[in-house]
Amino acid sequence: MSLLVVGSVAYDSVETTAGRRNDALGGSATYFSIASSYFACTSLVAVVGEDFRDEHVELLKTHRVDTSSLERRPGLTFRWSGVYGADVNSRETLDTQLNVFAEFSPKLQPELRSRPYLFLANIDPALQVDVLEQMDVRPKVVALDTMDFWIGGKKDSLTRVVGSVDVLFMDEGEIRSFAGEANLVRAAEAILGLGPTTVVVKRGEHGVLVFRDGSTFAAPAFPLPHVVDPTGAGDSFAGGFLGYLAATDDLSDEGFRRAAILGSVMGSFAVESFSTDRIGSLTQEDVCQRFQAITELSRFAPLRDGESLPWRIED
Amino acid sequence: MSLLVVGSVAYDSVETTAGRRNDALGGSATYFSIASSYFACTSLVAVVGEDFRDEHVELLKTHRVDTSSLERRPGLTFRWSGVYGADVNSRETLDTQLNVFAEFSPKLQPELRSRPYLFLANIDPALQVDVLEQMDVRPKVVALDTMDFWIGGKKDSLTRVVGSVDVLFMDEGEIRSFAGEANLVRAAEAILGLGPTTVVVKRGEHGVLVFRDGSTFAAPAFPLPHVVDPTGAGDSFAGGFLGYLAATDDLSDEGFRRAAILGSVMGSFAVESFSTDRIGSLTQEDVCQRFQAITELSRFAPLRDGESLPWRIED
Repeated sequence: MSLLVVGSVAYDSVETTAGRRNDALGGSATYFSIASSYFACTSLVAVVGEDFRDEHVELLKTHRVDTSSLERRPGLTFRWSGVYGADVNSRETLDTQLNVFAEFSPKLQPELRSRPYLFLANIDPALQVDVLEQMDVRPKVVALDTMDFWIGGKKDSLTRVVGSVDVLFMDEGEIRSFAGEANLVRAAEAILGLGPTTVVVKRGEHGVLVFRDGSTFAAPAFPLPHVVDPTGAGDSFAGGFLGYLAATDDLSDEGFRRAAILGSVMGSFAVESFSTDRIGSLTQEDVCQRFQAITELSRFAPLRDGESLPWRIED
Repeated sequence: MSLLVVGSVAYDSVETTAGRRNDALGGSATYFSIASSYFACTSLVAVVGEDFRDEHVELLKTHRVDTSSLERRPGLTFRWSGVYGADVNSRETLDTQLNVFAEFSPKLQPELRSRPYLFLANIDPALQVDVLEQMDVRPKVVALDTMDFWIGGKKDSLTRVVGSVDVLFMDEGEIRSFAGEANLVRAAEAILGLGPTTVVVKRGEHGVLVFRDGSTFAAPAFPLPHVVDPTGAGDSFAGGFLGYLAATDDLSDEGFRRAAILGSVMGSFAVESFSTDRIGSLTQEDVCQRFQAITELSRFAPLRDGESLPWRIED
């Protein structure tokens, strides 16, 4: 089945311990759609400025991302710049220039309004509500990502849209802050009570926890000897996750678990290079090998029927 | 097979968001031996003061921990007090009174010098070397825990003893600091190069990574809705880990993986109460149930022979 993503396309200037890159292709919808496009037909709704380079449109097209709703407007493309420390989990934003993104007000073409899978990437929750309301048919799966900025500044709109989605992606700090609860299990349970069937807690290099009614799944992150640039890891994770669900249309608990592993696969590729260099050049063999490496990473022998653990104390 | 642990027995005063407890039974060797004793015969080498309460000796004996080398000396038992924040990974030490522990200089009784499994809990690395040298027979497995204090202050002694052990337990920050390498994979590889066959990176509520030559295993932590007191989680983890190895004598990669899961089981119980209340009152059923819960937590369908992931891009 096909996927629709609404979010940002940006030029990022990033400095990490591995080096620095200026005005490199980035943005939530970019990483997401490149990751998801390996698995499912993906249409991108976003806005760029007059400076957006043709080679980057071509890159998306090479991935067979539908760019017919990638709007070009007078002005400059959204720009973000930041620095990561030796601890890749810590980042500092140096500058944000919204440019054409400041006026982004997505209007869905009629053919997009019945897409069965929808990803609302990190944008103003009021716009996320608006996009959802433009759908003629309620998608099978609506997923949403957000950030601390909206939790602090637009909690009401965000709570409203969270109540209307199926899958919520948040990082550890965001989930605690949004739920007002320091314990992650109770925070996730509180958010499941608002409406979503699935809460995905992103923990960077510590993997993810997927909370669903009656089932919790821990997907490990793949330990990498060289992390170049963590930018886009979360959106690439979401792209792998929803790409798998849309491609298989398997919404069983089993399907969600595999989706999380494929998310972890795509997130791990995203951080191996600056920009979309690595995530944009994967082969089927690359992806299968890493899926199997994560399988090997988390494999252990469960207790067989009738087998018990060694025990020497009388109860 | 039987286990020997050398470490601290203490009285801890702890404050967490769940409450506070004064002068409660604690110490690395206490948590370790209670956890390991469910699985393997465990002898404890430690020192306590005249104030050490009989009920606590009885508690260890109830677990069939061999306390014949629990030395009682004039003076007071080692005391530690600390406060944990809402983020259970952050703790502040308020006070440390070494008391009789300041003069701790473990002398192994002859019958302990041929124990096949040895755990050197977090004490001065010079003492850890000394204990290892007292062994008449090199144990099958020597494991070691340490802390940032020794990495900063006794790096040379620590490096020497690390080079002589099989299994090293460190937390994320410690492993980075000890190896002088921010990347965890490369830090673990550097330490494997010093001698240990197994480096266990403890990540608290994010689980552990077990690095071995040619094999990496990620064991998740069990997500708990109520964490009461994180004190002792790492030592209880080590107790479950080595207790399993000693009980089964299974030193295959498979054995180490299951050992890590059982470590995770025991660590999860340790944090559910203050002191040893929960870890000290487990049944076989409790432990099996949590082992199975962690199995369920990390379960997903691997690719079957010949199965491929959905794919729509031509390579």
